[in-house]
Amino acid sequence: METVIIKGNIISAPEFGKLEITENGYLIAEDGKIKGTYQKLPQEYENAFIEDYGDALVMQSFSDMHLHAPQYPMLGIGMDRPLLEWLNTYTFPTEARFADKDFARTTYHRLAGELAAKGTTRVCMFSSIHREATLILMEELENAGITGYVGKVNMDRNGGENYLETTEESISETVRWLEECHFEHIKPMITPRFTPSCSKELMQELGKIAKEKNLPIQSHLSENTSELDLVKSLHPDCTQYWESYQKYGLWNDKTLMAHCVWSDETERKAIKEAGVWAVHCAASNENLVSGYAPVRVMMNEGLNVVLGSDIAGGDHLSMFKNITAAIRASKARRIMDDRKTEFLSVIEAFYLGTSAAAPFFGEKPGFAPGNALHAIVVEDRTLPVVRPLSIRERLERCIYRREHGCVLAVFSEGKKIYKK
Amino acid sequence: METVIIKGNIISAPEFGKLEITENGYLIAEDGKIKGTYQKLPQEYENAFIEDYGDALVMQSFSDMHLHAPQYPMLGIGMDRPLLEWLNTYTFPTEARFADKDFARTTYHRLAGELAAKGTTRVCMFSSIHREATLILMEELENAGITGYVGKVNMDRNGGENYLETTEESISETVRWLEECHFEHIKPMITPRFTPSCSKELMQELGKIAKEKNLPIQSHLSENTSELDLVKSLHPDCTQYWESYQKYGLWNDKTLMAHCVWSDETERKAIKEAGVWAVHCAASNENLVSGYAPVRVMMNEGLNVVLGSDIAGGDHLSMFKNITAAIRASKARRIMDDRKTEFLSVIEAFYLGTSAAAPFFGEKPGFAPGNALHAIVVEDRTLPVVRPLSIRERLERCIYRREHGCVLAVFSEGKKIYKK
Repeated sequence: METVIIKGNIISAPEFGKLEITENGYLIAEDGKIKGTYQKLPQEYENAFIEDYGDALVMQSFSDMHLHAPQYPMLGIGMDRPLLEWLNTYTFPTEARFADKDFARTTYHRLAGELAAKGTTRVCMFSSIHREATLILMEELENAGITGYVGKVNMDRNGGENYLETTEESISETVRWLEECHFEHIKPMITPRFTPSCSKELMQELGKIAKEKNLPIQSHLSENTSELDLVKSLHPDCTQYWESYQKYGLWNDKTLMAHCVWSDETERKAIKEAGVWAVHCAASNENLVSGYAPVRVMMNEGLNVVLGSDIAGGDHLSMFKNITAAIRASKARRIMDDRKTEFLSVIEAFYLGTSAAAPFFGEKPGFAPGNALHAIVVEDRTLPVVRPLSIRERLERCIYRREHGCVLAVFSEGKKIYKK
Repeated sequence: METVIIKGNIISAPEFGKLEITENGYLIAEDGKIKGTYQKLPQEYENAFIEDYGDALVMQSFSDMHLHAPQYPMLGIGMDRPLLEWLNTYTFPTEARFADKDFARTTYHRLAGELAAKGTTRVCMFSSIHREATLILMEELENAGITGYVGKVNMDRNGGENYLETTEESISETVRWLEECHFEHIKPMITPRFTPSCSKELMQELGKIAKEKNLPIQSHLSENTSELDLVKSLHPDCTQYWESYQKYGLWNDKTLMAHCVWSDETERKAIKEAGVWAVHCAASNENLVSGYAPVRVMMNEGLNVVLGSDIAGGDHLSMFKNITAAIRASKARRIMDDRKTEFLSVIEAFYLGTSAAAPFFGEKPGFAPGNALHAIVVEDRTLPVVRPLSIRERLERCIYRREHGCVLAVFSEGKKIYKK
């Protein structure tokens, strides 16, 4: 039995809007699974090795539930362009480069390392249309200790130059890719890019594969208003966008839908009833002027809401930054809603970036016993202070402001995957 | 004659929305003043020493036109609180600490160093009510090579516990402080905190001092709606907020007014006619849910608009981050305005964070000959690329995304004040 004992100020979010704090406590895992959080070291561990981080903060690591791996090298470029121009000028040509396996290897190695160093230990990620690059991405993530799901993208219409599959290729490459997936912690996910990129035949086939192999699904939903119009023209039989997924079996409680900016009451009800997961990508929605998702309303209505960096529509990989982006977006939404909706508190947004995704991975929120150990250690002693701060204030400040090198260690699935 | 020759990719913003780029060029200054930007080294400098930064970007440094120095140690704390609670719980107790000169010395030394390292070489800054701490702040900025203005804050009503002056103290301490200012590059500025904090007698006296000594003025204007109501109740004779400054001689072309979020057409006209400077503090206005200033409309109407970090309502000192905050705020404003106003492009926002403030300091926009040399050198070669990027794209990406240690050097008033 392998035991990991982490000593520090233990912080977790067991519920939306709640923090559990154990000052100078112990977080103990056995064989990769959390045993518990303790104020005093249980006697049985008296002689065990303790990773003592002193006064540092030991918090849950992050889940980034929507990002495009092949857009990583274009982070922070083209932010002035409208969505379609951005896709055609920057995104599709960038993704097309991943036909080159060496380029994919170098880029994905770096991406995986940066995710680990920033404390993102769980992902649901779009790859490109390329089977081989997708396997390389999965291998690099696995080697870096990241866990979660990756999808080879399917798109047989409305692509870019040198960046499109035939329907047959898309299906056969997906089938072959699924056969070739053999990773322990990175699993495959069915990934139709979004309704405008996929013919009905392709959607139908992907729905079948997802059902047969019991695979989770990820795509995009109601990101901006021109997209809504386009989907309506492509699927005149669908009253709403979500129905274009539902009718092909791509709409269930293992489905992630990125954005949901323009999801009205009816669409939100459909999301809730199916148990679909809405992935809020605040930074991306701001950058591409898509709008502000009604996250507070979704939470009140009981929808599953998680966060995504959505690089490279989003401009930062760090989930600290994406948590503050979600707070800001909720404040914009509050202003737009004539101050009728509350903004997200720091603690609520921290929950969305950490615990909210736990059930998607079959776990409980917070550092619940039985969960795999996913944690980061953050130090803030180099930041100036005017008076002693509470642990809660220190967490809040770390979310807004950190110094370079503040992440001392990252644990994923019980293993230390990053050390300063 | 002291000559500085900087070689690299020279980037400046000579006009709102325009960039001037000299790839592999030379930026030359003599005795601290810019002589010119050259594609080829003029013959007369053939034997001169060249600071060769290779392929790095050499761009204008930043002007932070509104920030509260004594709020520096509370950066990133209390962002969930409404303005008044935030002031009373965090801000006033923090500012009150600067009665302690040692605390002021340590904190301001660090602040000045961080400003220099982040490429902010010009500031207009609020200190606290303390004369001595204000002099310490000015000295630390001067020593760090930062230039601009600092104001001892005046407030004789509505302060916090241990944080208020009598009217007489406020005036006599201001007079004494002005006598004791003796810095070369950091000059004093008259600083009534804002109308609710200053009695009529105090405002009147400050207006007189500003006029007699020909000093610039800084304060706050129309930040949030409850503040507007409060000002109306305090000055029933004033139809609008700005009149409460105007009637005491605190409203002219050397006046900076932070925020102007709720400035309507009439107030904007008054700003324009007086030549007052509107300081846009996008991050702060988002964090405190104040609203989104109509920056695009202000620019169209020909107002002077500059940027401020407004720490610690703003959560970051870096002007790179405050430039992206201004872009985001303009995108929020576009959404709120039913897409009738354009958002700020990256290049437009870069202008606001650099050149826009030049005339306030008696200079021309861009790297104009005769301007004092204020520049930073930024390297981006460690960022991943998918294809060769243009200099403009590289600038855009640096604004959104930089790596730790990317600032290689900072020049202020012709001197190198920071080196990696």
